Amino acid sequence: MNNDRLLKDIEFIVELDKMKTILRQTTLIDKSKRENDAEHSWHISVMAMILSEYANEEIDVCKVIKMLLIHDLVEIYAGDTFCYDVEGNKDKKERETKAAYKIFGMLDEDKGRELRKLWEEFEEMKTNEALFAASMDRLQPFLNNYFSDGGTWKKFNVSKKDIYKRIAPLKESSNILWNFTKNMIEDAYDRGYILRE
Amino acid sequence: MNNDRLLKDIEFIVELDKMKTILRQTTLIDKSKRENDAEHSWHISVMAMILSEYANEEIDVCKVIKMLLIHDLVEIYAGDTFCYDVEGNKDKKERETKAAYKIFGMLDEDKGRELRKLWEEFEEMKTNEALFAASMDRLQPFLNNYFSDGGTWKKFNVSKKDIYKRIAPLKESSNILWNFTKNMIEDAYDRGYILRE
Repeated sequence: MNNDRLLKDIEFIVELDKMKTILRQTTLIDKSKRENDAEHSWHISVMAMILSEYANEEIDVCKVIKMLLIHDLVEIYAGDTFCYDVEGNKDKKERETKAAYKIFGMLDEDKGRELRKLWEEFEEMKTNEALFAASMDRLQPFLNNYFSDGGTWKKFNVSKKDIYKRIAPLKESSNILWNFTKNMIEDAYDRGYILRE
Repeated sequence: MNNDRLLKDIEFIVELDKMKTILRQTTLIDKSKRENDAEHSWHISVMAMILSEYANEEIDVCKVIKMLLIHDLVEIYAGDTFCYDVEGNKDKKERETKAAYKIFGMLDEDKGRELRKLWEEFEEMKTNEALFAASMDRLQPFLNNYFSDGGTWKKFNVSKKDIYKRIAPLKESSNILWNFTKNMIEDAYDRGYILRE
């Protein structure tokens, strides 16, 4: 046993603690605080367990969960970029690619490569697993916004068109969840949670 | 498609948001705040991905991760019981069994049963997966205590004997992690992080 390998793992695990301090724009449903990356990553991983039966295609749920658990690690160095922030999204890819090199580079090469591959698959959003993972990643803040009377939609005057665009992966990954979500958007619009155009 | 089933899933997912408000005694390594159940559950799930190669026996990592993701859901109703709290641990089992009935009962019967079985397997700590999951659950606050100069060990005057007892599952699940952790305990003792007897 190469002790060096385990020491790297432990340093990596210690570094991950920072995920608990990276705030997202989304608040908890009770509006008591903004959620952080660790909380968000946990929530969507459980969601994948609960909702995978609604996927259009056969998916490897385990792979989806692993993707979701690590998909935001790059934010330890790149920070959270709000999905409706046009400016911040311009150099997001560049910042996150650098961050991926740094965070996954903490581990032994084979281990870091495996996590990096998972993250890249998630980012490319092409495989059935990546599409379903992206759907969970987008459905969770959607639910938090809906059940907190509009949340960041209201706060940042997000349009219905932008929300439809944001949840587009659901259309490809699950007809059932897509139809359900569409109804919720229209209902949120009627309730005044979304900017009236 | 029975829409009722999905509605139950969504209500369950909304209820899980409360995990982000259930505080544990352990603090973040930077000591900025106490961590909550959602953060803790995320951290140990990633740890299982990273450390599973050190398990003594062949384990189903996917099952371990699923266990860890849901192992603390009962605390939504039963609250967090500090592991070194003798009084609180007296009726812990009873409170948590009631809570399990309530939280898993929110889902359709087959789905609730599946999660409940996972939780029971975790609690019984007999299978290789449950032992490895318990090891992650105990190693994470251990690391946070060590890397925050003693954390709850120091705050609550926890003895070396109690710490050894707490991390006992590691002895059964991974020789490598057990040896590593033993060295850390002795080092923590030398550094004065642990009560001198």
